[in-house]
Amino acid sequence: MKIQTKTHYFDEPLYLESGRVFSKFHLAYETYGELNSDKSNVIVITHALTGSTHAAGRYEGESKAGWWDSLIGDGKAVDTSKFFVICINILSSPFGSTCPLDIDDSTGKEYRTRFPVLVISDVVKAQVRLLSELGISRVKAVIGGSLGGMQALCYAIEYPNFAENIFALATTYATQPWAIAFNKIAISAIKSDPNFKGGYYDKDEIAKSGLNGMAVGRMAGHISFLSPASMNEKFGRNYVETDGLYELDGRFQVDRYLDYNGVNFSHRFDPLCYLYIAKMMNLFDCTRHYGSLKNAMAQIRAKLFLISFSGDILFPPNLMEEMYKCMIDLGAKERVFYTQIDSDYGHDAFLVEVEKFDYIIKRVLDAR
Amino acid sequence: MKIQTKTHYFDEPLYLESGRVFSKFHLAYETYGELNSDKSNVIVITHALTGSTHAAGRYEGESKAGWWDSLIGDGKAVDTSKFFVICINILSSPFGSTCPLDIDDSTGKEYRTRFPVLVISDVVKAQVRLLSELGISRVKAVIGGSLGGMQALCYAIEYPNFAENIFALATTYATQPWAIAFNKIAISAIKSDPNFKGGYYDKDEIAKSGLNGMAVGRMAGHISFLSPASMNEKFGRNYVETDGLYELDGRFQVDRYLDYNGVNFSHRFDPLCYLYIAKMMNLFDCTRHYGSLKNAMAQIRAKLFLISFSGDILFPPNLMEEMYKCMIDLGAKERVFYTQIDSDYGHDAFLVEVEKFDYIIKRVLDAR
Repeated sequence: MKIQTKTHYFDEPLYLESGRVFSKFHLAYETYGELNSDKSNVIVITHALTGSTHAAGRYEGESKAGWWDSLIGDGKAVDTSKFFVICINILSSPFGSTCPLDIDDSTGKEYRTRFPVLVISDVVKAQVRLLSELGISRVKAVIGGSLGGMQALCYAIEYPNFAENIFALATTYATQPWAIAFNKIAISAIKSDPNFKGGYYDKDEIAKSGLNGMAVGRMAGHISFLSPASMNEKFGRNYVETDGLYELDGRFQVDRYLDYNGVNFSHRFDPLCYLYIAKMMNLFDCTRHYGSLKNAMAQIRAKLFLISFSGDILFPPNLMEEMYKCMIDLGAKERVFYTQIDSDYGHDAFLVEVEKFDYIIKRVLDAR
Repeated sequence: MKIQTKTHYFDEPLYLESGRVFSKFHLAYETYGELNSDKSNVIVITHALTGSTHAAGRYEGESKAGWWDSLIGDGKAVDTSKFFVICINILSSPFGSTCPLDIDDSTGKEYRTRFPVLVISDVVKAQVRLLSELGISRVKAVIGGSLGGMQALCYAIEYPNFAENIFALATTYATQPWAIAFNKIAISAIKSDPNFKGGYYDKDEIAKSGLNGMAVGRMAGHISFLSPASMNEKFGRNYVETDGLYELDGRFQVDRYLDYNGVNFSHRFDPLCYLYIAKMMNLFDCTRHYGSLKNAMAQIRAKLFLISFSGDILFPPNLMEEMYKCMIDLGAKERVFYTQIDSDYGHDAFLVEVEKFDYIIKRVLDAR
């Protein structure tokens, strides 16, 4: 499988929903496979909150493959021997596209908290612009889960003729207060980190004392990604240090898991970018310009594949079911498909239980 | 209704499960109604993580009544014109009983993080000792929800002849990793508070900059007390400052609710006590000395009333159902009762939807 990693620099302005504007911006992206001559074999993969362009394959010397490698590759459901697959890093993310850590040309300084708040529509608008630069005006499919599923829905509603098939997994049409509340913990933990001071400017101090706020915030994320059942299976009530049972600092295995993942994450993800992407997730409501879910979904011309997961407590299946029923009400039953995958993995299932749904994607992509 | 608030000082040692010992300790408690001559009209109310002795009634000038006032009072389900009701502050809690803020006689200094880790069994052992001092060796009922329900179960299993009826609401026989994970956020947020420094010794600094860690931790608690449905109903996607939609600091109503409750709580609850009580909750497993749930429940001689709430994500109904089935398996079907109350209030339902279950308690207590 041929992997290419690139960055595209735009000198034309990008007008944002907030009224603010990027006079310049750039997008990092990765591609898998080869674009055919009539550019009819394109599949767009949209990533989740903390994802990157690196969806599949391994770079030289890399121990871990891309985040959706079980789905994407030669001979896999998203078959890179047939399709040209592209994954674009979302604006605000620290993995290569324009984000709060970049220099704002108008001031010559890093944006930091002066970065504009973006919405999913802005992110997708920029992606469509990039695809257009590459000569691509219609794609075989857009596929994404969680925040990536929000992008997929945005493609479906705001660019009705852009994609033949839309796959939205483990997502919602509008972020509910339950998910906003989980994000709130992360946001508050980051902002009350003593190193935050309005924008984490003192890099020496951070290097010394770490980013505890981001670590605590990530723990809340991990709870929302799992489920009571998956935690029981993974950890039970097992204790890490049995002689520490009556020590205030003694930990259960689930504590250790959260400690490890929290601290680890704080070393690989910028907390300012996290604030902006959490905000973007909170603001997501694909009905906002249309008055109702039905009016919003009436825009869709693509075939829509909705896949939810039974144990998902972040974006529970009933929200996707609502979308499905809406399409049925709109008389689009031949263009909509819904399934709830039985899983104990909670929200994470769209990443870890690929074998439970990849055949659906394969069947659609293989059809001529 | 006659309310009395007292503290009892013990000069005899209390041996703890950890192997540590209080050479002296004290318990604060509140009573409602009058003890009859043969001391046969006693009801014990056990409080939850952040509760206090003040379960019912109003002190002079007090705007808000006790935390279970809708259940307890003259003519109410727990009728204080008939019963003598007692609510004892748990050890480790900051509301009057021995806790980390007290002076350790062996050092002459506050315990702080040198306070011993307690388990529910220790807490109940101390309560039984107090009741014994008051000449009470058998009670009509023990009634408690959440951590109070754990105490009620502990009375049932470890003091089989102590109570005629046990009411355990919104609780579990052993804290599951899901609940431990929510506590972990609070514990980590408290410990990474810049003012923590191993025990919050600098009171001037705390008065100045607050207890952000406790506030963030409490937010996680509030998520676990509510449910997706109750949040939708309470907040929806309503925004607080509509002109702040694209401001990074702009908040949804659910954000404001969490901010308000987090900060408010940090002013009324000591974070060190919180660490100890969260640990106590995490350690709770009433099967630990018995090898199995069945063996543990085989100890019970009281009538056991188990009440769960459909939307409770902290201690989901299936855990209480398991206890019920266990009692049935033990051939105790005439001594066990289980019901799941339909509620959108989540875990909080045991406090706020009293009218949905108080008739069960009333019927049992009224029977002769």
